Formats: sequence, structure tokens, C-alpha cells
Amino acid sequence: MSVRKLLIIGGVAGGASCAARARRTREDLSIVILEKGPFVSFANCGLPYYVGNLIKKEEDLLVASPELFRKRFAVDVRVLSEAVAIDRDKKIVRVRDLAAGREYDEPYDALVLSPGARPFAPPVPGTGLPGVFSVRNIPDCRDILDWAGKNRVGEAVVVGGGYIGVEIAENLARRGIRVAIVEREKHLLPPLDPEMAVPVHAAAKKAGVELHLSQSLAGIAAEPGGKLSVSLSLGRVLSAGMVILATGVVPETGLARAAGLALGESGGIAVDSRLRTSDPHIWAVGDAVEKTSLVTGLSRLVPLAGPANRQGRMAADIICAGEGKGPEYRGTLGTSVVGAFGMTAAATGETEKSLAAAAKKGVSIPYERVYAQALDHAEYYPGAKTLIIKLLVRKEDGRILGAQAVGEQGVEKRVDVIAAMIFKHATAADLENLDLCYAPQFGSAKDPANLAAMIAGNALSGFAPVARWEEAEAYGAVILDVRTPFEWKRGHVPGALHIPVDELRQNLDSLPEDKEIWTYCYVGARSHLAVRMISQTGRKARNLTGGYAIYQMMKSVED
Amino acid sequence: MSVRKLLIIGGVAGGASCAARARRTREDLSIVILEKGPFVSFANCGLPYYVGNLIKKEEDLLVASPELFRKRFAVDVRVLSEAVAIDRDKKIVRVRDLAAGREYDEPYDALVLSPGARPFAPPVPGTGLPGVFSVRNIPDCRDILDWAGKNRVGEAVVVGGGYIGVEIAENLARRGIRVAIVEREKHLLPPLDPEMAVPVHAAAKKAGVELHLSQSLAGIAAEPGGKLSVSLSLGRVLSAGMVILATGVVPETGLARAAGLALGESGGIAVDSRLRTSDPHIWAVGDAVEKTSLVTGLSRLVPLAGPANRQGRMAADIICAGEGKGPEYRGTLGTSVVGAFGMTAAATGETEKSLAAAAKKGVSIPYERVYAQALDHAEYYPGAKTLIIKLLVRKEDGRILGAQAVGEQGVEKRVDVIAAMIFKHATAADLENLDLCYAPQFGSAKDPANLAAMIAGNALSGFAPVARWEEAEAYGAVILDVRTPFEWKRGHVPGALHIPVDELRQNLDSLPEDKEIWTYCYVGARSHLAVRMISQTGRKARNLTGGYAIYQMMKSVED
Repeated sequence: MSVRKLLIIGGVAGGASCAARARRTREDLSIVILEKGPFVSFANCGLPYYVGNLIKKEEDLLVASPELFRKRFAVDVRVLSEAVAIDRDKKIVRVRDLAAGREYDEPYDALVLSPGARPFAPPVPGTGLPGVFSVRNIPDCRDILDWAGKNRVGEAVVVGGGYIGVEIAENLARRGIRVAIVEREKHLLPPLDPEMAVPVHAAAKKAGVELHLSQSLAGIAAEPGGKLSVSLSLGRVLSAGMVILATGVVPETGLARAAGLALGESGGIAVDSRLRTSDPHIWAVGDAVEKTSLVTGLSRLVPLAGPANRQGRMAADIICAGEGKGPEYRGTLGTSVVGAFGMTAAATGETEKSLAAAAKKGVSIPYERVYAQALDHAEYYPGAKTLIIKLLVRKEDGRILGAQAVGEQGVEKRVDVIAAMIFKHATAADLENLDLCYAPQFGSAKDPANLAAMIAGNALSGFAPVARWEEAEAYGAVILDVRTPFEWKRGHVPGALHIPVDELRQNLDSLPEDKEIWTYCYVGARSHLAVRMISQTGRKARNLTGGYAIYQMMKSVED
Repeated sequence: MSVRKLLIIGGVAGGASCAARARRTREDLSIVILEKGPFVSFANCGLPYYVGNLIKKEEDLLVASPELFRKRFAVDVRVLSEAVAIDRDKKIVRVRDLAAGREYDEPYDALVLSPGARPFAPPVPGTGLPGVFSVRNIPDCRDILDWAGKNRVGEAVVVGGGYIGVEIAENLARRGIRVAIVEREKHLLPPLDPEMAVPVHAAAKKAGVELHLSQSLAGIAAEPGGKLSVSLSLGRVLSAGMVILATGVVPETGLARAAGLALGESGGIAVDSRLRTSDPHIWAVGDAVEKTSLVTGLSRLVPLAGPANRQGRMAADIICAGEGKGPEYRGTLGTSVVGAFGMTAAATGETEKSLAAAAKKGVSIPYERVYAQALDHAEYYPGAKTLIIKLLVRKEDGRILGAQAVGEQGVEKRVDVIAAMIFKHATAADLENLDLCYAPQFGSAKDPANLAAMIAGNALSGFAPVARWEEAEAYGAVILDVRTPFEWKRGHVPGALHIPVDELRQNLDSLPEDKEIWTYCYVGARSHLAVRMISQTGRKARNLTGGYAIYQMMKSVED
């Protein structure tokens, strides 16, 4: 029995994609979108830049209007229309018309839930005070800009240093507001591993942003005179004209839960590979839905626009294909990127953090970790900037598990390439041999992504095993610095031996024979050569992956 | 029997990589590099930018010095040392010391040939005249700059509009020299399909560069007064102070041929998957070697730095691993990029041209071709620019065969991602579902690469079949323009019907029932919706892939 009436709750990324694809598939389908807010299909991810006046006009954020949906797609879009209950037996949704203040019933054959996620407000006093905002939609931005203008806000506190927190902080700073970021973890950008966020710390500080790390919000209170006093968990109190809460999002599952739909263990709506909920007539997509990691196979929440759009489109295909047919959603890599303060940070697949979390859930994947530092394009062509790639590969077979990168330019390109490789189950050996674009403005003959894979390959094969800085002290190896005397003088690892690489060949006999020798240089290339020289004398040697650069980054986020 | 002495002929990309990797692998190996020129390991690909003064100092082009090779890698580098003959029986190379003017014999256990490729000079009169140059090495650049300075060159002719020709043209223009490019094919950048070069034509013209397409060099003559007159095959004569020959390269196979080593059908040195020539003690790498296309399996010449570097490194591994062991070179995608006049053009895998050439050699792969045009990043974030992706997929199963892209920014990223997908035998369905980096500065929720794959998927499944502009006239379909009246007025396809997409739903009955209807809009999105509407009435409809934009590009390079 074919579906005649498709009802979609939520008209942003997933819902809008679903409606457009459904119409393209079937002209005879009745399609209704219910959207609680005043807009459909608006550019969520652009909101911080609207606050920063980089995007000048509110209209620019509107990807598609209700009018376009009606005219071009014959979709009945109802904004300011909140779905308040689902009667699954009768296949009816109870709708509140927020403008008219009335309620009515809307029937469906197929129902798609695309409610998204809402900002999480920490359960502390004062988050409801005037001057405290979150950034979910266009009206939020209007409120922030109004408040900042009317109250001539000179200082703001951003609570939460995740992607959105950092973007908002950058954009407030762009408006001339002094910003402090409060982050509960010891580093910004919690989706990344700690050391990979360090370049962003430096850039934020350089832009005048204060960082209060390893601290959470204890409460907000109104000061006499109209300012807010923001208390942090370690006792510090910040005074500001405005507070932005960017402490993450939680899936909007109220409606689904009330309707008795099954939720997953991360608290999102549970769906099968064809995006169907526990009710055979209800599908769900986007931020509210749990998604499978393509690497670990575990479910998690991945509130990203890409997967939401893809799922919306796919849900339309599945519903139109009919029972047991249509494409299957294979899961996500959670590829993500953030740009702020002149730095770009990006990630795909698993991090060390997420692999540790997976291990706690019983999915333990022994992995090797390497760092590559390289210029985004040929050194000899002007304007090259360093980027750092962290690559995680499975010990067993070299399969790539995840990558993170940070730098000023060329970062997202390498992460996208590695995302493609992970998606297709590639190994380090594959990535090493991948032909990538090279001209001096764009890359190098050995692209940074190739280089990361070569380092991983050398580590896995035993050609040049790597060691971890975290283990250096406890392991009892001899630490050998092979940099120049100049570099050594400017700073080195306490207790290290020092033999510049160009003098090492003549001094191999002076190295102890009874201990492992762990070498480092600044980025890891000279120490790689050193490892090879030393290991050919019969000694055991390893390369402290990432070199002194990563050592310093790790030190800067030590507990 | 282990190799004790490794002799490498050629010290640039492949040779230098081979020496460094061999040293890292074996400290006990004697390694000698013979380099005919005055430098080793110099940045070939930077030469045009040195001519353009973007790279200021000659030293910047030197990636590694003979001194570094000696000191750090204990490699005996001999510059100005030409290998003149190989005695394969005695395993000896005859070397000419170009500085001392003497000859000597150098023995080897393993010999690696990395002689590169040399500029091809068209067999016409005058290419040897003073003021006629090619661009292979640093001395060539010195000569060009000296000549241009001494003779106050105001106009130059660049013969050949390939990657190097276009780069040189841009860099001469950057120096204030008026440039004309002469190209035998009907478009610049012959490695690309014709229409994909059109945006570069427009950019070159805007930069003041004259294009003489579909014409070859007939001859060069000295004019009284010191200028050169450059005659073209169609009769035109250009006057210039300087001529740069950039008419491609030919593999340096003289030495190999004289030694009786087997060559391949494209004229390069033939090697097996372990880079071994027909002599068991001689390996060859880089531009002089024939490489297998990973897509068609056919051999061809691929003079690119990436494969050369990788092969050099791999040859070291193979030689050190011993008989029948070591890694295998799987082949190349020939991923390449060029930036000039503010445009970037890039390609990976096969083009329509190379697929046509493969078909002539008996490897016929039926394919579907689609174009995606999209912004490099979100429209609502300032600075977004259009890029065009051309994607070729195998009809049988959607496997990606090749991609080309052109635009102002974000071009090489998409090509690199697609290169990764091709390398791992991905299909359009894979690329459609790949999670890529998205934040408004970097991409879109549906990345242009995803979009290209969606279009291909729709075409392959029959959801929205595509048609080719080249076939439109002969096929006899009704051509339907679904753009706005404003767009229609500014230009349209002769004989087309015009119904704006937003009025189509009401006017479907007016369409003929006995003919296929081929629709177009500007980029292909509205016409995609039109195809779906029309085909649901029972009519046959197809999308003229690429839309009016591609139509115009194709018209501009019509024979």
C-alpha cells in the first residue's frame, strides 16, 4: 500500500532535504512540513558569522523560503507550527499553530521526524537571566545583536569552547567585544584530542580572547548596573555584559519519547539502517537520531549538517521505495571542521578519545598513532604554512581509523582525503601511494597526507617504530635529541642526550647498548633517520612521534 | 647476494628520493648519484614562478644540496657528471665529468635510472635561435631572465598551452611582458577535456594574454633589429622579443636505449611492477618510465613529480628487499593540477579523451558523464566562487573513472577527494555518501563532490537520465529551457521550448508525447526537477547535463 501523505516535522536540514527529494520522486505525494520556528531551511552553521557581521543580512541565511517550497516543490510548508503529540494508532499529529494560537490534527501515512537538537543549558543558577543567550536560530542572533547594541556590551563570556563556542567567540571579538571562553575540559574543541587544540589556544589568545580551561560554569548573577557576574567552578568570577551558552546540544526527543518511540543508549532516537524508528510508519533523521560510527560500529550522536541532509534525502528514497526497499544509511565518519582566529582544525573518523570511549564499551582496537608536520604547499613557493596531521591506524593491518589536522591552511583538504580513504577501508599503505594534486601553490610532491601515511607505514612495519611522549618518562629509555645546537639551546627535554643528526653517524658507538633509544627532532624527520642509523647498530630505537613540537603541545595541556 | 653498491643516474625527484630512502634502509650501502646538471633535488615545478619573480632567489629552488646529501645521508653526489654509456655485462657506467672534461668508469651492483624527461622541440626551423628557450632547469631560467632583461623584452610567444606553457605565460605576464600562447589543440591544457579549459581561456584573455588555438608553430626567424618573427601554421606571424617552447616533454631514454633496455609502446622505459627494467640489475623510475593507469590498466607516460618521488623511494625498498621481494608499484591516477590567471584546473583518473584513446587500444569502458556546478563554500558566507566538476563513471556499476574540475578556489580539494575514491575503486554511490568537512568557509552540507556523485547516481539509476549537448541536434529531442524569462532573454539554445520550472507543473499537458524531452537550466538543478516532473507523466525526459553553462563552454571550443 503506497504512501499518499508524507508529514515531516522540522523544516531545516534533514526535513527540507527530505521534502525536496520526495517531491522529485513522486509528484502525486501530498507533502507537509511542520516547522516550529519562523523559517525553513535556514543556514544553521552561518549563525555565528551573522553575529560577527561577516554575513550582513538575515535573508542571506535563508537557503530556501516557504514560498519556494510551495511554488517549486508543491510542498505545504507551515512555519510557526509545533507538533505537540503523535497518535501512532490513528497516524495523526497534533499541531499547534503558534501564530493563531489554535490546535488541529494532521494525518499521515509516513511521518519523518527531523526535530534537530537544542542547546544544552548547564543546570546552574542564572542561565535564564536577561543577557544570557544561546545560538540556535535566527531569532537568537537577533536577540544577541539587540542586547549587545542596546547595552553597549564590551565584554562577553562564552561558556563552552566547542566548535560553536569558538566560532561565536571569534565573531564577538570581530565586533570589538572582549571575550572570555570557559571550557570544562582542559582544551578547546573537545571533539579533538587535547594536543591538537593547542594551536587554536595560541591563536585565540593572540586575538585577545581569554581562556578559562578545566573550569565549568557555576552560576550567573545580575550585578547592580546591569552587568552579569559569571562564577566559575574554580572560584573565579568574570564580569560581562553578555553570556553566550555554547555548552553543546541535546537531541530533541521529547515528541518521540512521549509517543513511545525507542531511544538509543546515547539518548537519541533509535533508527534502523533504513532510518525507521520503532514504529513502522515513522522515520527519523538528523541531529536527533543516533548514528553508527563507520569505524567502531558503535552508536553515537553526531549533530552535523552533512549527515542530516543525506539522511533526509535518503528517508525520502526509502519511503518512496516501499517496505523493505530503498537505500541503507551505512553510518557516519563524523567529518568536521572549524575555522577560527586564523586557524583551521578538522577531524574524521575516530580520535584517541573516541577510541578510549569505544574500548570502555567493549570495542577495543589496538592502534598506532603518528604525527606528520609539513607545509600545506611547497616551501619554495611563498605563503606556505605548517599543518599538523595526527593519524590513527589499526595495528593489525594498518587500516586508517581516524585523522585530525590543525593549521592555517590546507587542513580540511587533507582531512577530506583521509575521510575518503577511511570510508573505503584504506590502509596507511594505500594513502602512502595515493596520487594527489601537486603544483607548488597547492601541495608537495609528497603531500602531507602521504607523509603521515609513510610515517605510519614505517612504524607498523618496524622500519621505524614510534614511541609516545606520554610514555617517555616511565619507560626508562634514553631520550636522544638530534637537533642542532641552536635548537637545543632554545629548549629541550630535560635529561635528554644531545647529538645533532649530522654528527650521529660518527658517534653511534657512544650510545648505550642496554637501553632503548628514543629520538626526537623538531618534527620527526631527522629523528627518523637517527632511528634508522641506530637500529642498524643492533640497538633498539624509536622515534618520538611528532617531535619537540608535539612535546610542547602536550606539555601545554598537561593535567 | 646482497647489493653493496647502488648507482643512481639522475639526482632530481626520483633519484634523490631513492638515495635518501636507500640510506635510511641500509647504512652499509655505497650510494652514488650522477647528475648531469649543476644541482640535485631542485624544485622543477617552481621554475615558472622563479621566472615570474614570485620565487625571488635561485637558492629557494634547491630542495637539498649535494652537501646535505653527503653529510646527512653519506651519499656521494656528483653533479655535472653525465652517464654516457652502460656496460650491462660488466655492470659499469661510463661517466663524463663535465667540469674536468674527463671520463671514467663507475661500477654498480644495482643501477637506478632516473633521467627524467626533456623538453620536446617541434621539428621546425628556428628553434635553435638566440631568444628561443625551454624551461627545464635553473640555468634555463637564468638564461630567460638574462635575455629578457638585456633585450628589454616587451612581448613573448609561448609555444604550447599545456600546464607549463600556461604557468610560464602567467609568470611572464606578471613581469609586465605581453604574452601570446600558441596551442595546437583547440584548447589550452590538453590533458583536460576541451570544455573544461574554457574558464582558463577567459581568465588568460582577461589577464591580457593572446590565445592562438588550433595552430602550431611553423617556424621562427630572426628579424632585423633583434626581434623574432614567429610563424604559425594558419599563416599568422607574431613578432616577439622572446619565444618559450613549452610543447611537452619526451622521456630521456637515450642511455637506456643504447644499453638495449626494453622500451614500452609510448616510448618510455618499460619496467615491471617492481620497477625493474629488462635487465635484472637495472631499475628505472620517474618521468622516463611508462606507468600503468590504475583505471584502464594501459601504459602511458605520466611526467609528474608525485609518482617520480614515490617510485624513487619504492625502488630503494625493492632493491634493499632483494630478489622477488619488496613493494609493488600499482600504477598511477595521474592526478594533476595547474593554477594560472586566478583559476585552478585539476584532473584525476581518466578523461573523455583518455577513455577514447583507451578504446582505440581495445580497452573500451562505457561511461556516463555528468557535470556539477556548485560554490566552493556556502553561498551565504562571503567569497564563495563557482567550481565545475566533471565526473565520469562506469555505466556498468557506477565506479568512478575520472574527474576534472575548474574554478577559482576549492578545485584541487575535490579532485584529491575523488582521487582517493578512484584509488579505492569507489562508486558514485560511495562518493554520494561520503562525509566531508563542512563549515561555511570550507564547503557545503552537500559538498560539490557529493553533488557530482548524486547527479551521477540519478543518471545511472534512471531516476534522472542525462543527455549530452553534442547529441542534442542529431537526436531530434525537444529541447526544453526551464530557466526564468530573464535568463532566456539573455541567451538560449536555438529552437528550444521555454517553460520556467515554476510554471512547468501546470503546463505538463502542453508537452509533446511522442518525443523525448531534453531539459536544461543554467547548471542542471532546476532541469533535474523538470526531468522528474515530465517523466512522471509517462514521457521520456533527460537532463542536458551541465546546463546552459556547459553548452556555452562547449560552443566556445567547437571545431
